[in-house]
Amino acid sequence: MSEIEVGVLGATGVVGQQFVSRLARHPWFRLTWLAASERSEGKAYKLVAPWRLATPMPAESADRVVDACVPGRGPKVVFSGLDAAVAGEIEGAFAAAGHIVVSNARNFRMDPLVPLLIPEVNADHLSLLTEQRAAKGWSGAIVTNPNCSTVVLAMALAPLRQFGIKSVIVSTMQAVSGAGYPGVPSLDILGNVVPFIGGEEEKMESETQKILGSDGGRAPHAVAISAHTNRVPVIDGHTMTMSVAFQNQPSLADLANAIRTFKGRPQELKLPTAPQPALILMDEPNRPQPRLDADLGGGMAISIGRLRACPVMHAKFVALGHNTVRGAAGAAILNAELMMAEGIF
Amino acid sequence: MSEIEVGVLGATGVVGQQFVSRLARHPWFRLTWLAASERSEGKAYKLVAPWRLATPMPAESADRVVDACVPGRGPKVVFSGLDAAVAGEIEGAFAAAGHIVVSNARNFRMDPLVPLLIPEVNADHLSLLTEQRAAKGWSGAIVTNPNCSTVVLAMALAPLRQFGIKSVIVSTMQAVSGAGYPGVPSLDILGNVVPFIGGEEEKMESETQKILGSDGGRAPHAVAISAHTNRVPVIDGHTMTMSVAFQNQPSLADLANAIRTFKGRPQELKLPTAPQPALILMDEPNRPQPRLDADLGGGMAISIGRLRACPVMHAKFVALGHNTVRGAAGAAILNAELMMAEGIF
Amino acid sequence: MSEIEVGVLGATGVVGQQFVSRLARHPWFRLTWLAASERSEGKAYKLVAPWRLATPMPAESADRVVDACVPGRGPKVVFSGLDAAVAGEIEGAFAAAGHIVVSNARNFRMDPLVPLLIPEVNADHLSLLTEQRAAKGWSGAIVTNPNCSTVVLAMALAPLRQFGIKSVIVSTMQAVSGAGYPGVPSLDILGNVVPFIGGEEEKMESETQKILGSDGGRAPHAVAISAHTNRVPVIDGHTMTMSVAFQNQPSLADLANAIRTFKGRPQELKLPTAPQPALILMDEPNRPQPRLDADLGGGMAISIGRLRACPVMHAKFVALGHNTVRGAAGAAILNAELMMAEGIF
Amino acid sequence: MSEIEVGVLGATGVVGQQFVSRLARHPWFRLTWLAASERSEGKAYKLVAPWRLATPMPAESADRVVDACVPGRGPKVVFSGLDAAVAGEIEGAFAAAGHIVVSNARNFRMDPLVPLLIPEVNADHLSLLTEQRAAKGWSGAIVTNPNCSTVVLAMALAPLRQFGIKSVIVSTMQAVSGAGYPGVPSLDILGNVVPFIGGEEEKMESETQKILGSDGGRAPHAVAISAHTNRVPVIDGHTMTMSVAFQNQPSLADLANAIRTFKGRPQELKLPTAPQPALILMDEPNRPQPRLDADLGGGMAISIGRLRACPVMHAKFVALGHNTVRGAAGAAILNAELMMAEGIF
Repeated sequence: MSEIEVGVLGATGVVGQQFVSRLARHPWFRLTWLAASERSEGKAYKLVAPWRLATPMPAESADRVVDACVPGRGPKVVFSGLDAAVAGEIEGAFAAAGHIVVSNARNFRMDPLVPLLIPEVNADHLSLLTEQRAAKGWSGAIVTNPNCSTVVLAMALAPLRQFGIKSVIVSTMQAVSGAGYPGVPSLDILGNVVPFIGGEEEKMESETQKILGSDGGRAPHAVAISAHTNRVPVIDGHTMTMSVAFQNQPSLADLANAIRTFKGRPQELKLPTAPQPALILMDEPNRPQPRLDADLGGGMAISIGRLRACPVMHAKFVALGHNTVRGAAGAAILNAELMMAEGIF
Repeated sequence: MSEIEVGVLGATGVVGQQFVSRLARHPWFRLTWLAASERSEGKAYKLVAPWRLATPMPAESADRVVDACVPGRGPKVVFSGLDAAVAGEIEGAFAAAGHIVVSNARNFRMDPLVPLLIPEVNADHLSLLTEQRAAKGWSGAIVTNPNCSTVVLAMALAPLRQFGIKSVIVSTMQAVSGAGYPGVPSLDILGNVVPFIGGEEEKMESETQKILGSDGGRAPHAVAISAHTNRVPVIDGHTMTMSVAFQNQPSLADLANAIRTFKGRPQELKLPTAPQPALILMDEPNRPQPRLDADLGGGMAISIGRLRACPVMHAKFVALGHNTVRGAAGAAILNAELMMAEGIF
Repeated sequence: MSEIEVGVLGATGVVGQQFVSRLARHPWFRLTWLAASERSEGKAYKLVAPWRLATPMPAESADRVVDACVPGRGPKVVFSGLDAAVAGEIEGAFAAAGHIVVSNARNFRMDPLVPLLIPEVNADHLSLLTEQRAAKGWSGAIVTNPNCSTVVLAMALAPLRQFGIKSVIVSTMQAVSGAGYPGVPSLDILGNVVPFIGGEEEKMESETQKILGSDGGRAPHAVAISAHTNRVPVIDGHTMTMSVAFQNQPSLADLANAIRTFKGRPQELKLPTAPQPALILMDEPNRPQPRLDADLGGGMAISIGRLRACPVMHAKFVALGHNTVRGAAGAAILNAELMMAEGIF
Repeated sequence: MSEIEVGVLGATGVVGQQFVSRLARHPWFRLTWLAASERSEGKAYKLVAPWRLATPMPAESADRVVDACVPGRGPKVVFSGLDAAVAGEIEGAFAAAGHIVVSNARNFRMDPLVPLLIPEVNADHLSLLTEQRAAKGWSGAIVTNPNCSTVVLAMALAPLRQFGIKSVIVSTMQAVSGAGYPGVPSLDILGNVVPFIGGEEEKMESETQKILGSDGGRAPHAVAISAHTNRVPVIDGHTMTMSVAFQNQPSLADLANAIRTFKGRPQELKLPTAPQPALILMDEPNRPQPRLDADLGGGMAISIGRLRACPVMHAKFVALGHNTVRGAAGAAILNAELMMAEGIF
């Protein structure tokens, strides 16, 4: 695959920084354009990005002059780490101007013509793009990735679709990095649990139904989903307990086998950041744990453990994923890799 | 009520220390006897109890000479904070010798002739004692309180029994103090979640069915319960999310009203440590939280929040209780208060 | 002492809330007036104060209508929990209008005519008030309390002044509540140490020299102080290690005795919130600890431990105090109690 | 450099696991022998090592059969992660039997004939080995690395020796991983500070004097050192504040330059795990921080920040190092690399 140039919208924010960091040594994408608000325009990236990551700022981006988010500037393919307050307008304008916007923002996720993409789960939803362009009058396009807790849920359910998923009750224990920076005040979360994350439960329910749905997500999956979302004092990694009811009556061995043998398009295509395997089924009785397992598969794998019978539904288990990698910038980059491999760029 | 003398078995352990602390200024019970292993016999309590509580050791216990756990010594009423490894034998011997053992240990909890008592929920289970004495040949008796996570679950369900509870899925986020001392290694839990607590899920399921059951618990309640138990980096307070299905179809208003107006025997009898009210229904969208709410009602109240419809079952909510107060020593003391008020001592 | 009415400036902020909470059952002060920004004027306190404390909002304040910070309104004695951005102007205006402002804000702390008061340490600095009124043309007055880390340092040094303190090196481990709300982002401090708190080291050095100084603080104490300040993931309680050099050569026994027998004016006058004793010297090898000891003396005592020889200076030890009680609202209330007892109101 | 075989004594413990993990892909050392207590003898490593690291157990070690710690078995060069309770006897026996023991245990650290080695600081102390062999009658040898907090202190002081270090006051904030597993109970450290670590202050003082000393450490450096050691809720990384007095009067610029240009033998020899640079001087006002900076240089670099004047001594700053890498297994491996490069194996 020959290298292509890419840019980042909202490059100075926390998600933007993750794009900058993760694109630094990408085999297919060369990051040549950083855009942010007009306040940052014309200044070196290192002077305007308040770097929050534990890994150092990549040298090649540190001295790059930041541009404004003006459609037409920058390469054809742009990643968006824009804040939801501005993402709707800017991403639309970029798509109209011919850019392919690979977005982590929530604004277009539930748009019926925009793929809400997890390459392992619904790669076929990319087929929406033709209709999207026609209906929106865009020469470019927008593709989105789901919310950071949705992706763990949807990935864990993906191999189980064959058994007819009827309903799911999921209770999350989510890391503070999911709330951005400054995000959760330490007084709220040190030695504490906050059993509420605004809008999160609704997103997990509706986004998952779209992702698992057919016709590009326009026919949502009929699964009933009930989410309880909680914030816990963890830096990275969303852990969740799940109970699932099925139409068919799979045995625990059936479920374990489905998880262990699960493969998606990224694994088949051997995309550069595709985790191998996508799902890791753990046998240890007390895993997965965010501090030990969030980084598995370079942060792109979903770990599943404690698969056992549920006295109320059919089966229950624990799932874990890295919320700022698989749940944000890493998700968008895998989306772009799939689009590149599928010839969409 | 005139004061009676009480003692503590296992007085030097963490639960024993909580008994010592909480009995220090009790209006009905005068703590006059501390018993522990033979290693501590004959020594001042302050020299053998490695004090772990944030409140100072009560002066009147500090200099008391510790006795051995020998039946016949000490007052008629003894609280047991014994470790499960020895509680079975010692508690049985004390009951045989005529002591009334109010125990926090798990050994006799599931014995069909031993009340697993929560005074607000199943005060009538005390009627088992006559049969217990006859069948066991004890001149004394044993009464137990449930596991620290069970009590939160059972208290939250108590006012909802009238609607015909069919099934419950509960996912806990439990404090480290529930594991005693030294308990959970800091390397396991700092910035982490451990999605497993040995034996805890089974206890929550079977103990709750007994507590909510009839005939003194010998006919367990038919509710299907599925528990997911997790350890989180919180000092005190077990938080849990619950989804509940009912035979009748109560509205959310029905449920809220049932919780708000709930009263048990301790509230009717105005027992000294009975929380008023027993259940606190919170309106704030992000409560209860362990750091803010575990101490409500002197640590004896259960807080409930976020009552809302469940897309899979009927209703869902969050419940919280103080695991070392309502879930351990405080529970046993309330049990003893009920027994005293009912004329059992 | 007959009760007097008091008010709170900045009543809706975190420090203001602490005033409201701690004044709720005060034997001398009846809280009858709450003032905040114009945005809150005319509204019930419970509707405009985003309550952050673990103890519930006092009922008598919850329904009180909040006033604006207009000089002349409200009682003669007002506590100030105002933010530094506005405290300078408002407090000055109140003093000019005849109010006695007992302030926790930093604005007037280093004013040579304003007492920087710790009742146990420099009660005599209140003599500045006559001159203050004359020079400023105020019919009222302003008295301040020190920064939350200064008060621990100054209290620990107070009994040692008799040995001729030459120099002090202090390294702090400060709680997040010292930064207010939202304060420290959780991403910065969970499982981390931040070895910097803006302006804190300068405050500890200069405020301590003023407090220990003579002539009302206008002749600062000659002690050389070097502070290292660090933020750690603790909710309440500033812990600090100190090495001290003396002109005289006190033995460790001399130092221990001086700490143990230390008494200030609040202890002599038996002021309502004066801790008895003011300083607690602990013998255990691993104390004081913030989680176990910050609340000693109702949060008003300073704990000292591990007193031992210092191979570089003369002695070293650990000191701990509750930063939002002894270091904020509690400090101002003790200041007011002293002023009331001394007949200043 | 051609590869040599190495073994690990105490391979199943936490330090032993770090050796196994860090030697997995070492360019010079091939790990072919794992030894532990007789209880583990003859069993596969994966069955007897309770793996505590976030990185997975290396496949090549997982199935290796564990041997007993019997001198004469295993390769010539063995790393020791033995517990201090047994290290003295076993390491001595291995040295007598011709093995070169590169030890992390504390038993031989203060032996006048055993190098307490930090390759950047006192590579010349290896010259002790000839005398060691003669005096002890060993055909092998023992070399040790310092305690995890000593190494940060000694590395930070190394470039400053040229200015005549007179005295140092250091106050640490140490990670829980320094205490091994299970180590610090979570009840002791969650949201807390413990201002005491048994024996740590003495080690920091005496080990540093030996390391900076001459004649292989037999003439300890005359620097007066006073250490305050504290445990904080951090997983990895010991942070410490330091105030230093010098005989010469270096400017801050002199000190900064000495730190920035510091190079030791590992950097000159380009040893495989030598950090480049060994010391990182940070300009940001709030760094280093353990969560962000402990992993710099692969965990082998020491970070220094906030270099500024000290009002009591001459200069003060913050230093940070990774306690389980630079302070344990990583230190021993660098020691072995130096010995290999110097032709000692």
